[in-house]
Amino acid sequence: MIYLDNSASTFVKPKEVIKANIDALTKYTANPGRSGHQASVKAAMAVQEVREKLSNHFNASNSENVIFTQNCSEALNIAILGMAKQGGHVICTESEHNSVLRPLNYLKEKGIIDFTVARQSQKTGIVACDIEKHIRQNTYMVICNHISNVNGDKADIESIGQLCKERGLIFLVDGAQSCGHEKIDIMKSNIDFLTIAGHKGFYAPQAIGALIMSGKAIPEPIKFGGTGTNSLDLNQPKEIPDRYETGTLSTPSIVALGAGIEFVENHFEEIKNRLDDLTTYLNYELSKLPVDVYTQPENPNGVLAFNIPGTHSNDFCNYLDEKWNICTRGGYHCAPEKHKALGTIDQGAVRVSMSYFNNINEISRLVQAIKHYIK
Amino acid sequence: MIYLDNSASTFVKPKEVIKANIDALTKYTANPGRSGHQASVKAAMAVQEVREKLSNHFNASNSENVIFTQNCSEALNIAILGMAKQGGHVICTESEHNSVLRPLNYLKEKGIIDFTVARQSQKTGIVACDIEKHIRQNTYMVICNHISNVNGDKADIESIGQLCKERGLIFLVDGAQSCGHEKIDIMKSNIDFLTIAGHKGFYAPQAIGALIMSGKAIPEPIKFGGTGTNSLDLNQPKEIPDRYETGTLSTPSIVALGAGIEFVENHFEEIKNRLDDLTTYLNYELSKLPVDVYTQPENPNGVLAFNIPGTHSNDFCNYLDEKWNICTRGGYHCAPEKHKALGTIDQGAVRVSMSYFNNINEISRLVQAIKHYIK
Repeated sequence: MIYLDNSASTFVKPKEVIKANIDALTKYTANPGRSGHQASVKAAMAVQEVREKLSNHFNASNSENVIFTQNCSEALNIAILGMAKQGGHVICTESEHNSVLRPLNYLKEKGIIDFTVARQSQKTGIVACDIEKHIRQNTYMVICNHISNVNGDKADIESIGQLCKERGLIFLVDGAQSCGHEKIDIMKSNIDFLTIAGHKGFYAPQAIGALIMSGKAIPEPIKFGGTGTNSLDLNQPKEIPDRYETGTLSTPSIVALGAGIEFVENHFEEIKNRLDDLTTYLNYELSKLPVDVYTQPENPNGVLAFNIPGTHSNDFCNYLDEKWNICTRGGYHCAPEKHKALGTIDQGAVRVSMSYFNNINEISRLVQAIKHYIK
Repeated sequence: MIYLDNSASTFVKPKEVIKANIDALTKYTANPGRSGHQASVKAAMAVQEVREKLSNHFNASNSENVIFTQNCSEALNIAILGMAKQGGHVICTESEHNSVLRPLNYLKEKGIIDFTVARQSQKTGIVACDIEKHIRQNTYMVICNHISNVNGDKADIESIGQLCKERGLIFLVDGAQSCGHEKIDIMKSNIDFLTIAGHKGFYAPQAIGALIMSGKAIPEPIKFGGTGTNSLDLNQPKEIPDRYETGTLSTPSIVALGAGIEFVENHFEEIKNRLDDLTTYLNYELSKLPVDVYTQPENPNGVLAFNIPGTHSNDFCNYLDEKWNICTRGGYHCAPEKHKALGTIDQGAVRVSMSYFNNINEISRLVQAIKHYIK
């Protein structure tokens, strides 16, 4: 089987990640932060170590500002629902996933906020002026997908962060598809909230996410309950990260994420180059064929979308799966506004998404399959 | 090390659970329900199998009514926040965990609901008449902790379920401490929502929870985002379980939970007897010593609370940990109302919580440590 659906979840996990996960199932099974005994403290220290790794990786000001979540969607929900401002306005981009659009739509339907979907003026991704023109007096937040999960378009988060800083806007970056192979510096890019999916670019098990905060904007929690702290107080604790980490944490996934971060840091250039090479090669090969490609050559970010004219994306993905044993993803990839922008709202698109563990032979085989179908 | 803090998280995981988790890290790493290809379908089928196991285990009407959550707290939040009724009234019990009390308190502080904490008229646990006397015209929900995580008190959920049915009230049972060693029949006990913690009585990894619904009461979701379905619709899907399962599921934990359910079903009587024997033995031994025991002999449910007069519970737990290598938990166990009821609001209590993997020698050693301290 050739697996090219890594934007949904990276399929091959590094042996270091698997080992860390197995270790955690025997060594760190006490509840971290719930008791003072040695086993609980040991688990809590293992979790804290990963908090610090994430904090360092993204240059957060403080490891306490790293919140572990079930998945990237939950991290986005905390930032979006938790910062909602009655009568306020939010700007997001055409590349947003439903994990951004649906919370925004919920707040809009409730009459709490209004929001605008910014469109790209340039082919390769959103830039600051695409956002700036939508700023209203009541705009309080900008949400920006970093790398599109549909076609790899990349937003210029540095300049957008600068704009947000100048205009006093909260800046939320959805790093689901960029973390692990893009350098992101929270402080330098003026990011208030960065959300990540550990089981994607960090090669961790499903599902572990995180919300990394600047500490300047403090959302309301969206869940309430036991945190192991201030047990006599019926109010959710004010302390961070406890305020957002209700109930037992996924210790084995967190410990495995720690190994994933280390793996990524040890292979950062290789990973980046691998994704670049594979995407560029595929894009070049497709440029010679009668197919519609929706990924710019300037965006070799490990994800490429295309269509074969006259064939629905799902039909072609089924063909690749059944006849060639190649896994890709058709349809809309939970990103309806992006497909509207690409003009693919009728047939969706065939998405090829790669990881460090793919190789050139696999992409060659995919190209061969496409050629065979066209012929 | 002797680990007696299993109510926080069972420490030893059955080899079947560990094996299932490891398998999932290599076999089921595609994203379930996100694509149509073989790897995604395989992961989705593995998840569905566990949904069916849980559904069968608790006699739910339909596997679709099994919602996977990050942990038990999230399941409780969905049921409590998602069913909130403006101007309504909720009855809970003195045994509730903060994962029930804090969401209720949040709704009360927002001016949405009022709630009453029912007290026990009998020593061993809440019965229907303790609830009945608090029913008001605007009462819409009863929340009942099944087995107390502090002292093992057990609620009579059958009669309370009957009462709720007769009075048209939604019935939510927090099964965090009972699932895995108590038979619970959703339909027979008229339960609308049952919440479970997989990493406790089902010996699954941290952290996986579930909300099991009757299907008669449908909560609003508390998170919004990608579900892999109806991607073009910005509204959260109406379909269950998708409506509540936003973002990527924790496939390895779910698959491991499946192995845990099987383990529990294959050893159900043994597990129950083991917990019964160990609790009864400990209670008997303590009855001969000058200590305050807060667990009734009629409740040999694997958890026992006590105090040594004049010693703060945390101090004694530290002593057990440091001098005897025995892990227990002091303080309030995230259950402030229970400690008020037990009269332990000043010193908390020493909690001993057992699992199938504990044995009589370990409890003997604990008794020896207590005797040594008293002397």
